[in-house]
Amino acid sequence: MQNDQYYMNLAIELAASAKGNTNPNPLVGAVVVKDGVIVGTGLHRKAGEPHAEVHAFRMAGDHAKGATLYVTLEPCSHYGKTPPCANLVKESGVKRVVVAMQDPNPEVAGRGIRLLRDAGIEVEVGLLEEESRRLNERFIHNMLTGLPFVRSKFAMTLDGKIATYNGHSQWITGEAARANVHELRHEVDGILVGSQTVLNDNPALTTRLADGREGRNPVRVVLDGQLRTPTDAQIVDTTVARTIIVTSKEHEARTKEYPGVEFIYVSIKNDKLNLQEVLPALYEKGITDLLVEGGGTINASFLREGLIDQMIVYIAPKVLGGRHSITPFTGDDVETIDEAMPLSFDQVEQIGEDLRIIAYPKKD
Amino acid sequence: MQNDQYYMNLAIELAASAKGNTNPNPLVGAVVVKDGVIVGTGLHRKAGEPHAEVHAFRMAGDHAKGATLYVTLEPCSHYGKTPPCANLVKESGVKRVVVAMQDPNPEVAGRGIRLLRDAGIEVEVGLLEEESRRLNERFIHNMLTGLPFVRSKFAMTLDGKIATYNGHSQWITGEAARANVHELRHEVDGILVGSQTVLNDNPALTTRLADGREGRNPVRVVLDGQLRTPTDAQIVDTTVARTIIVTSKEHEARTKEYPGVEFIYVSIKNDKLNLQEVLPALYEKGITDLLVEGGGTINASFLREGLIDQMIVYIAPKVLGGRHSITPFTGDDVETIDEAMPLSFDQVEQIGEDLRIIAYPKKD
Repeated sequence: MQNDQYYMNLAIELAASAKGNTNPNPLVGAVVVKDGVIVGTGLHRKAGEPHAEVHAFRMAGDHAKGATLYVTLEPCSHYGKTPPCANLVKESGVKRVVVAMQDPNPEVAGRGIRLLRDAGIEVEVGLLEEESRRLNERFIHNMLTGLPFVRSKFAMTLDGKIATYNGHSQWITGEAARANVHELRHEVDGILVGSQTVLNDNPALTTRLADGREGRNPVRVVLDGQLRTPTDAQIVDTTVARTIIVTSKEHEARTKEYPGVEFIYVSIKNDKLNLQEVLPALYEKGITDLLVEGGGTINASFLREGLIDQMIVYIAPKVLGGRHSITPFTGDDVETIDEAMPLSFDQVEQIGEDLRIIAYPKKD
Repeated sequence: MQNDQYYMNLAIELAASAKGNTNPNPLVGAVVVKDGVIVGTGLHRKAGEPHAEVHAFRMAGDHAKGATLYVTLEPCSHYGKTPPCANLVKESGVKRVVVAMQDPNPEVAGRGIRLLRDAGIEVEVGLLEEESRRLNERFIHNMLTGLPFVRSKFAMTLDGKIATYNGHSQWITGEAARANVHELRHEVDGILVGSQTVLNDNPALTTRLADGREGRNPVRVVLDGQLRTPTDAQIVDTTVARTIIVTSKEHEARTKEYPGVEFIYVSIKNDKLNLQEVLPALYEKGITDLLVEGGGTINASFLREGLIDQMIVYIAPKVLGGRHSITPFTGDDVETIDEAMPLSFDQVEQIGEDLRIIAYPKKD
């Protein structure tokens, strides 16, 4: 007979299998266990579809009576697109509920749990909480800030170069790492580049997964203060995916040259698009998880404004050199090393011949 | 009862324990086993002292008769500071010898093994050969090229910066990584910097090991084409360690201002000290293992000349940014990524909060 941790871990695995499909909703998994037998399993597959608990109880049927429910997130207590799960749990007849973490939304946190306890159900909270928070880091960030979760991603040589002096960068990493980036594009809902990248590489920024699996294309976002994106750029073709160009109001008249493209207008601050206005506008357009594939200048702007939530760095086993080669973060110079932004390394993994490091800014 | 691999692995561990003490000699370990019992063990502790086999047979005494000798390197067949070990092995009475690798010196390779076989001893070669080659990579390189083994070491932030625009670099990495560098200084016999580093940081470049263990100071080598090293720099104090300044002949008259410091004069090539002349001269002065702690320019020169044998990179969990921050390799720009030098990652390890990557240039 397995223990609580085993079942919660299974619930987390079920939840994680839907990565990229549930936005803006969280990833949730549920397992119902009666007398050491799994009688119900479920996960939230897609926004608008039933929650994990609904699937699990449908499967469990009468077996739920007297059983234990393991669920990765506090059952919801409000009426949304679907009725509140806490009611469903109450009516199911389970006698015990194990919850990995509370609802991250401070306005409703604890309500679902209270509802269950008031109904006489034994509720435990916090099993594998850290894993569960990691699983839903994007959703938690959304709830707490009302902004997209921003991932800064770049690929560099071992000597810290993302391109030669003239912008050549294809390819720094090998095939396996590049395939990994497409998995990432599938997971996020927006991908942001600067107009310089569009001018240099004319990328489509669509998702191509291995093994012919169907990938979700992220919304393509171009930061383009001068509206330099060529009207025949691949990214302007919105038949394959949505495109948003962020520019300043003064270029509004020319936007009609980009049929199908959505525009966001922000103010100019220090000669640059004001990033503090960009993120709320993108969140409003449904972008909850944003991959920033900027050059050194855009990356440095996000860094300076404190807008980076995660860093994903691919390091290739190569040395490029070159005194004008481009580095991942440029921007304004600082006087001492103490002014660097502290991170913590979270994962280091070999992907093909390259390394991938995942790091998080240290929060004060 | 243990197998051959177990005993050879033990011999390699014994050998490795003397890292940093045997230069210019190789690291060698020996284990004598009779009827499943280890009857003799030994290692080469220091140049000028007995070889590993001598210690092992002294310990084994008469137990060596009919035993098996495990040794990490082919027993020597020539008279050096000590008599040839192959003779000793022959006279010991062992009936079987397992050798991890042949002598790397092409002029004597196989001679010791032939001598043993001619004496009727069963000899097997190649057990854990790869591990043994890695253990003695420095010695093998010396034997094959007549040059020091060159390790390019640097510490950078996750965005590839080794210093701010004004050269500030203390400290990029944490205490554990800096302690690790002192272990490295103990292991090598030379440490090379540019005169700019002397001017910026005035380092002593001596070895301070943790736990009060006594460290070996490397010979300090300064590349100083214009002889700018201040006469009161810490590095000029040769009471603590040897110092070699590499400069051009035109500065010879001023060298008397640096009592105790040794000088190497090389020609100038493209306005820079000709590195192809530096390495043979350092090898002649007894430097078999050289740690290059250059800035971006010196590193790039070593790279361009194909003189880097190993790279040791510490990556700190920090982002510095800055468009004029200094990167680990600068030098001449190239047009495309394809001109980068290919490496292979060998080891990735977390050291304190930092990462250490060990990589090797891919040989054609």
